[in-house]
Amino acid sequence: MTLVQELRDLLGDERVLSDPLRTHVYGKDAGIRRGEVLAVVLPASTAEVVALVGIAARHGIPVVPRGAGTGLAGGTVPTSPSLVVSLTKMTHFDVDVESRSAWVEAGVLNLDLSEHAAGHGLHFAPDPSSQAACTIGGNVANNSGGPHCLAEGTTVNHVLAVEVVTARGEVVVLGGEAPDPIGLDLRGIVVGSEGTLGIVTRALVKLTPNPPAARTLLADFARVEDAAATVSGVIAGGIVPAALEMMDRLMTTAVERFVGAGFPTDAAAVLLAEVTGHPAAVEAEADLIRAVAESNGAGRVRVAADEGERALLWKGRKAAFGAVAQTAPDYYLHDAVVPRTRLVEVMAKVYEIADRFDLAMMNVFHAGDGNLHPLMAFDASQDGVMDRVQTAADELVEVCVAAGGALSGEHGIGLEKRDLMPLVFSQADLDAQARLAEAFDPDGLFNPEKVLPAGSRCFDLGRPVPAGTWI
Amino acid sequence: MTLVQELRDLLGDERVLSDPLRTHVYGKDAGIRRGEVLAVVLPASTAEVVALVGIAARHGIPVVPRGAGTGLAGGTVPTSPSLVVSLTKMTHFDVDVESRSAWVEAGVLNLDLSEHAAGHGLHFAPDPSSQAACTIGGNVANNSGGPHCLAEGTTVNHVLAVEVVTARGEVVVLGGEAPDPIGLDLRGIVVGSEGTLGIVTRALVKLTPNPPAARTLLADFARVEDAAATVSGVIAGGIVPAALEMMDRLMTTAVERFVGAGFPTDAAAVLLAEVTGHPAAVEAEADLIRAVAESNGAGRVRVAADEGERALLWKGRKAAFGAVAQTAPDYYLHDAVVPRTRLVEVMAKVYEIADRFDLAMMNVFHAGDGNLHPLMAFDASQDGVMDRVQTAADELVEVCVAAGGALSGEHGIGLEKRDLMPLVFSQADLDAQARLAEAFDPDGLFNPEKVLPAGSRCFDLGRPVPAGTWI
Repeated sequence: MTLVQELRDLLGDERVLSDPLRTHVYGKDAGIRRGEVLAVVLPASTAEVVALVGIAARHGIPVVPRGAGTGLAGGTVPTSPSLVVSLTKMTHFDVDVESRSAWVEAGVLNLDLSEHAAGHGLHFAPDPSSQAACTIGGNVANNSGGPHCLAEGTTVNHVLAVEVVTARGEVVVLGGEAPDPIGLDLRGIVVGSEGTLGIVTRALVKLTPNPPAARTLLADFARVEDAAATVSGVIAGGIVPAALEMMDRLMTTAVERFVGAGFPTDAAAVLLAEVTGHPAAVEAEADLIRAVAESNGAGRVRVAADEGERALLWKGRKAAFGAVAQTAPDYYLHDAVVPRTRLVEVMAKVYEIADRFDLAMMNVFHAGDGNLHPLMAFDASQDGVMDRVQTAADELVEVCVAAGGALSGEHGIGLEKRDLMPLVFSQADLDAQARLAEAFDPDGLFNPEKVLPAGSRCFDLGRPVPAGTWI
Repeated sequence: MTLVQELRDLLGDERVLSDPLRTHVYGKDAGIRRGEVLAVVLPASTAEVVALVGIAARHGIPVVPRGAGTGLAGGTVPTSPSLVVSLTKMTHFDVDVESRSAWVEAGVLNLDLSEHAAGHGLHFAPDPSSQAACTIGGNVANNSGGPHCLAEGTTVNHVLAVEVVTARGEVVVLGGEAPDPIGLDLRGIVVGSEGTLGIVTRALVKLTPNPPAARTLLADFARVEDAAATVSGVIAGGIVPAALEMMDRLMTTAVERFVGAGFPTDAAAVLLAEVTGHPAAVEAEADLIRAVAESNGAGRVRVAADEGERALLWKGRKAAFGAVAQTAPDYYLHDAVVPRTRLVEVMAKVYEIADRFDLAMMNVFHAGDGNLHPLMAFDASQDGVMDRVQTAADELVEVCVAAGGALSGEHGIGLEKRDLMPLVFSQADLDAQARLAEAFDPDGLFNPEKVLPAGSRCFDLGRPVPAGTWI
């Protein structure tokens, strides 16, 4: 029996897609790469995932799990004809208010969970800009972050347990309701493993109390350096704001044109800071942030007067990527991390690289934790532009790593940065990671050729592996 | 050349111990087990650790790393004649105030680090009761906790990177200064791996700002259930206190006799709660805790009036284990975790087990995160008492696990709970953990026969492995 026929017998015709017109979109994510899809399945339960993994294994077909496809690093883009497992039909969840946690199926949307939990005064802390569309399973796969992860930490800090279907078709629960994992932290290596260790079907997530009060500030600066110095100054002053975001002039201009959030378009950079907690504490912390900003040469420091103004400022921040789409047909949104104390020098190099490759560069990013998101806007139909973008993108990462940073803050490695892994990891590090992946997936059928470059295992031949085709 | 001679050539005579009178103490920890030591080495640098690992490997001798020996679960107790590597000579550290972090050698004492960082308004958040004696390397090996880990998280949340000497003698740095690890979280599996994956020689740890204000409350209750209900009520009320500790009557009585901290000895249980942050916020949170305690039938709720009274309350808490030593020649301090919402029923079973085995049972524990520390006081010279203690201890763990809890909160697995691992892990889970350990230590020479029970690898024969000899 063919693979597709076996899958149809299992799931019915409706939940097995093999028509290229319908499968095409499952070969892409929100980034610039695409791959080849053999078939797409839409399981509705863990048992169905177990069964379809068994079918794929018998046919020796690679399995690529997928959430909403909002990723940017190619983590869900198949590198060879694959069975794509879309978890978007698995949307059940149970909130346990007393223990402040929820068992959540992989296909639940991030914002749906937080909106449901809001009735109990709770939310799921990781808040990626794509939170209205992205799934909890995708958040787990990529260890997703978001503006409010500065104080709260990324997804791994909010996942108590994961239910995983392994390559051998076992269902294992790693972690548990108790706070500290015992033995080796298998929960911790599955979070962020981008589907290479197994298919996460459910997660037990922590829910965080909504803060009693919040203050949101917007400060503008004539020089990017002064905004960056304010970031370091705030943290050195003893405050970890709930969020601390920076946007540069090209970005605020695009946002203002798109949504009119009231961002000043004549400033070189603006900082958006939010402090949360007890009403008296947020007043004191807002005052301190204002003082640090002013001592670093801020122009105007504005405190949102009410919930409406606060929501408008955040709308501006979260609409940034939509705004860019109004300015150029294509964009490449990057993701890298530098130590907070090196922001000034790295930002200068980022602009220098953009100038040298003649690319429009905009920046909107999580300044508080040094997580840069340089964005290059361009028209992909122009000859040679993609090569310039790719070369500039790799240089950006190299600059960040040289400053003591990391390859990725929250978008994952996927295909985008796979071949850059040796910039930060030695052969011994890569071999250890490859051995761990092998322990979970000995035949290499789970999202193969992702995250780890060819040659990671010491006995690999190191032959080059294609990193997908550009759209 | 003999092993000892080679080691002497490397380190000199002073830092290689082989006289049984001097090595004996290195075969024990602070618990009740002992093992056999071939020799003890005291390296002073990572390079020396690399060299001695090479020597041990050539001789095929197991290597057991060790900090201050304050562990309770037998993690540093050799199961066969071994080379014990004491890291206590590696005591250098560098605090980086601007990035709020420190590179710390494994032998640095936990309290030394916090006392040094206090000059910069910072501290290392994990605060085990043994913090005046235990080392950062031991904290990393056991993923140590402490009263203030309720809000701040355990050691793994405060370690950005580890420098590890592998079984092959490589030096690898896992993690880094940037906030989110990329790739598989090898840093996260090394923290808590109890020396089975490699020898951690240095760690890059986060330092946490000292809070601007703190309020410490002591509430007493006529019924243990009411104290437990207060714990759930406080958390459900939206507060995560910095610490939330419970002590029962036998324990407060012992403490009062020992240090006179002003704990009421007529109450069935007391709760010690601490809230930290902005002065106004701590007032509001202290008021809320008082209200929850009173609505759950608290007798007296006392707020420490000044720093002196606060220090005295904490002295009482931290002196608990010293106090017990005044009441009986021996004690067995246990460690297990239950979901906070199951505290009441599990506590009732804990007392029932103690009654049944005729053991004096005292409790002092991290109630906020459900981390129980039942303590049995006894005289080991009485016939048969150790068998009763051991049987009762295993039953305690089984009760906790049956309630949805975990084997260990912060003391680790070591030898004590190794053979209980199948209570919470399936064969597939254990096999995955064993494969990971194999990836790091293929010959099984690094702290062998710890954490994972015999038969963890699917092809193991499952022969029983000795869990040490009682002292």
